[in-house]
Amino acid sequence: MASLTPTQSASRPGGRSARVRAAVHRAVEELITDGAGELLTIPVIATRAGVHPTTVYRRWGSVGELLADVATSRFSGDIVVPDTGTLRGDLERYAFDLAKDLADPDTLALVRATIGIGGEQGAAACRGERQQQLEAILERDQARGNHPPTLERTTDAILAPLYYRAVFTDYPLTPEWTRSLVATLLPD
Amino acid sequence: MASLTPTQSASRPGGRSARVRAAVHRAVEELITDGAGELLTIPVIATRAGVHPTTVYRRWGSVGELLADVATSRFSGDIVVPDTGTLRGDLERYAFDLAKDLADPDTLALVRATIGIGGEQGAAACRGERQQQLEAILERDQARGNHPPTLERTTDAILAPLYYRAVFTDYPLTPEWTRSLVATLLPD
Repeated sequence: MASLTPTQSASRPGGRSARVRAAVHRAVEELITDGAGELLTIPVIATRAGVHPTTVYRRWGSVGELLADVATSRFSGDIVVPDTGTLRGDLERYAFDLAKDLADPDTLALVRATIGIGGEQGAAACRGERQQQLEAILERDQARGNHPPTLERTTDAILAPLYYRAVFTDYPLTPEWTRSLVATLLPD
Repeated sequence: MASLTPTQSASRPGGRSARVRAAVHRAVEELITDGAGELLTIPVIATRAGVHPTTVYRRWGSVGELLADVATSRFSGDIVVPDTGTLRGDLERYAFDLAKDLADPDTLALVRATIGIGGEQGAAACRGERQQQLEAILERDQARGNHPPTLERTTDAILAPLYYRAVFTDYPLTPEWTRSLVATLLPD
């Protein structure tokens, strides 16, 4: 123990820790993609990840917290805030990107499983940074000297229908439809 | 066997069957309310309901199908289609009732669990008859000789924000906000 320098002691567990995290996240995503949502227990996840269940319990505490962690890393930072020069252009691009993301069956399965098991925390993880991205788009428009709709109104008009249609229905999230959401929010 | 009249043979298993169904539904609702979402397996549900696991497997097949069944009976037929005389009045009442229902923690826990485990089928069960009720409101307004918004537009403007806010955020579903959804859909 005495031979470990601070750098070593910091980097070794960090490296192992990152590998364990990646293996466990991958195991969760694989199990969800396989449609094994019902069997999503810590022992099942640990076996798939090739780690000891205690490691998973100690690090995440529960399947709910683990799913929220997976969803957070999946849904944060994966959408670049568009900068097309106009509010309409930015919102159309944002809605299009989000629709494409939510239409992916694996993403959708992860969202549903995370909401189901992760409760409030899981739901917040599924929103990820999308609310903040919308806020950034609106603030940029304000900085251009315009008067964009409020964040609440924009959330209700764009974010909500996208999530509702993806999660609760089997209607397709077509580009025409996502454009129509923006057109309704911003009439000519 | 020969002594059973058709009425008896139909009513006896029907009576027992209905009792089993009620006990299993109640067990699911209790376990979800207890926050035992992660432990929602057929053996756990059967024990709580006081029935044999085989009975549950035989009747519902999986936790997902069982949850969809519970959600269907919970979300269908519990909201009376309002008839206030105007489209605005009907939609305000409809949105208010739905908001009140979704704000109930037990209902919300059931919605989240059903989406998480029940997949597509569970999600459809959580919509229940709400889409049809909205359709009925719009058709009645058309019958009055008016030109109401389309069902798609009304779903995006009212149903989607209500479900999104309830399921994905911790913002309250206030009466002012539900009224504002209708006001946005139907400007003066």
